[in-house]
Amino acid sequence: MAKGGPIRVALLGAGTVGAAVARTLLTKREVYSRQLGRPLEVDCILVKDAAKQREGIPSDLLTTDFNRACEPDVDIVVEMLGVEDPAVDYMAQALMRRKFVVTANKEVMSKHGPRLLELAGENGVDLLYEASVGGGIPIIAPLKRDLLANNIKAVTAIINGTTNYILTAMSREGADFGDALGRAQELGYAEPDPTNDVEGEDARYKLSILASLAFHTPVLRESIYREGITKLTAKDFRYASELGYAIKLLAMASSQDGGIMTRVHPALIPADAPLAKVDGVLNAIQVEGDLIGRVNFQGPGAGFPTTSAVIADILDAARSIAADRPPAPMPEQTNATILPISDLTTRYYIRLTVIDQPGVLAQIATALGNAQISIASVIQKEADAESKTAELVIMTHEAREASMQEALRTVENLTTVAEIGSFVRVEEQ
Amino acid sequence: MAKGGPIRVALLGAGTVGAAVARTLLTKREVYSRQLGRPLEVDCILVKDAAKQREGIPSDLLTTDFNRACEPDVDIVVEMLGVEDPAVDYMAQALMRRKFVVTANKEVMSKHGPRLLELAGENGVDLLYEASVGGGIPIIAPLKRDLLANNIKAVTAIINGTTNYILTAMSREGADFGDALGRAQELGYAEPDPTNDVEGEDARYKLSILASLAFHTPVLRESIYREGITKLTAKDFRYASELGYAIKLLAMASSQDGGIMTRVHPALIPADAPLAKVDGVLNAIQVEGDLIGRVNFQGPGAGFPTTSAVIADILDAARSIAADRPPAPMPEQTNATILPISDLTTRYYIRLTVIDQPGVLAQIATALGNAQISIASVIQKEADAESKTAELVIMTHEAREASMQEALRTVENLTTVAEIGSFVRVEEQ
Repeated sequence: MAKGGPIRVALLGAGTVGAAVARTLLTKREVYSRQLGRPLEVDCILVKDAAKQREGIPSDLLTTDFNRACEPDVDIVVEMLGVEDPAVDYMAQALMRRKFVVTANKEVMSKHGPRLLELAGENGVDLLYEASVGGGIPIIAPLKRDLLANNIKAVTAIINGTTNYILTAMSREGADFGDALGRAQELGYAEPDPTNDVEGEDARYKLSILASLAFHTPVLRESIYREGITKLTAKDFRYASELGYAIKLLAMASSQDGGIMTRVHPALIPADAPLAKVDGVLNAIQVEGDLIGRVNFQGPGAGFPTTSAVIADILDAARSIAADRPPAPMPEQTNATILPISDLTTRYYIRLTVIDQPGVLAQIATALGNAQISIASVIQKEADAESKTAELVIMTHEAREASMQEALRTVENLTTVAEIGSFVRVEEQ
Repeated sequence: MAKGGPIRVALLGAGTVGAAVARTLLTKREVYSRQLGRPLEVDCILVKDAAKQREGIPSDLLTTDFNRACEPDVDIVVEMLGVEDPAVDYMAQALMRRKFVVTANKEVMSKHGPRLLELAGENGVDLLYEASVGGGIPIIAPLKRDLLANNIKAVTAIINGTTNYILTAMSREGADFGDALGRAQELGYAEPDPTNDVEGEDARYKLSILASLAFHTPVLRESIYREGITKLTAKDFRYASELGYAIKLLAMASSQDGGIMTRVHPALIPADAPLAKVDGVLNAIQVEGDLIGRVNFQGPGAGFPTTSAVIADILDAARSIAADRPPAPMPEQTNATILPISDLTTRYYIRLTVIDQPGVLAQIATALGNAQISIASVIQKEADAESKTAELVIMTHEAREASMQEALRTVENLTTVAEIGSFVRVEEQ
């Protein structure tokens, strides 16, 4: 690591965020260098095709050789490849050569975070990943530092812009899932293959990062319960709204007796809850702690604003290097139990189509009652004279998920029940 | 500074926050010590009356002698006296004896911040003040670190819980200022002498701290334009709501041609703006930067949650001490011009009582037009047959404040104008 001279940054990747970071570092070079008291230089940018012209980026900075990013005079390696391979390998190599590493890669941090952080510690450098969750919103550093005095009770987040855009459209315009998804794809808010977003996998990556940090324990992605938004219909938004609720895809981790409950699924939340008002592609993360109560971080969760988080991490690494400051040690880790969804206790919204005849509700109520679930309200919605069916919307009191699943199987098998249309958990924030 | 042994904390003050910090440090001692890898001990607590019993605080920790807080084995001094004197003097003494200092004192940081931060730098220690603005909400550290890559364009904040509680009551219940204030006083949300809060002075202290940090330039409290909420009436909330606006006391700092515009005053903001939904004693700080766009921090702005911020600073100082880490250097400071309010350009809401006769509006429109101010809408409200007056609500297009003040003087002197009831700036967020 050069002392006194320039601090040299190697960038891996020149996609949307990578190119924006490169251009910003180049155009704001003077400002950042003045703030640091040391010149901050872009050493090289690793790309697949070095011959391709990139606006605002001098072509002599481009390289296709990763080894150039690991030369001895490079201080900071910034990984913005956005895929797992070869990112994880490059990051490990950079850390072992005692480079500070900055990453925007949720997949790598979710799958390999604990190991890479350990590697960073062993090599006396820092691995910074503010941009991996919530785009530009500061949330990793606040969890690492500003909220550290708290026992975190819960993290409740809207951390997938694609699904929040779709749900907002379904709620505002009565659009069905397919139509709202199509529009999101036209506008570039959803990928041609949207599975990762709409099935909650992207949110699960990010939640595993947040939960690991909030609860000082490794939370593996696989241990997080996941359910997507594809089964929601325009009707559910209408009924939820009548009942005073919004529907959001929530990523949640909370501490309860016996361990940590983690899950990603659509949820009814009261229409006046702060998270109910987070619309479109915005992200929001609500943290509840024993000292602070509830605090909320909101902002743009993807795209260009992510540049803010990546460069903040670069400047933080650069300041540590300039001051010859070792990175702050990680707080002691515990090994909490990650609880299965069957241990959840919450309220439920159930929409079901039944044969329109007397005694049906009694059968359903009996099935629920046998599983110790009591009904808070039932509304009979549209009856269809032709098919002789009616639609029921049931809200339950608090019940155990295991009991609810058992009751649902019984209800599903009733000859008077045509279909369980929707089953959504209710989060009274 | 003891190495390897316990890190020792001296607390100054045992008021609401001071006592909560003391109790929390004592009860969570094990947790914090494990996180640090070093025991974290409360060395002493400076109080006025050491004989007074304080629940949960061993009386042998109490002292009335400041020198005990500055003994060589104390590492961190935490100032929670909540007044200017002797806090500023104690802080300076502690810094000169190379103690890390943590403070929750907005008045001291607003008036003496730059000098004390310099003193900390000279002595190789840190002065941390997260708790001085926004209670437990992380905002100082995010401005210092997480948003550092941005050129900040604007900070727009609701940072006084008392006035926000009063304005929320006026808005929701149609209460008048006096009634809403009375209730806030009964509930302990307003002081017996509420001047500092309702006249915007408290918000001005906090804004000077935020603006100095956001714009890397000293922003003196005196240079911030200030206007309180005492002249607002229930009517203004009704009319604003009809026009699609909420009324909030905003603390704002923004960069514009020629310098930084800073001000604390009531403002009409669109009812669907995020800040319009921040109600009651909550605080919210919105930061706009060139990279991030807009990001929002919301949470409880005072009382017990402040403990979270004070202890986060203590843990941060303790981690630096444990790792023998010098504090991060301050980014280079500039010396921007703080602009007078007369340089502001915005829209205005004016409520005035006029003689109910033809030609009055023409006179007012002429007076405004002569000052280059054009009217966006006029609504005639209640006419009073007895006094032969009518009420007009005028919304202007963008205009310069200097022109507006000139026009208001002319309007005020019109014989057909009985009174200018309200004059509120409009912030289109």
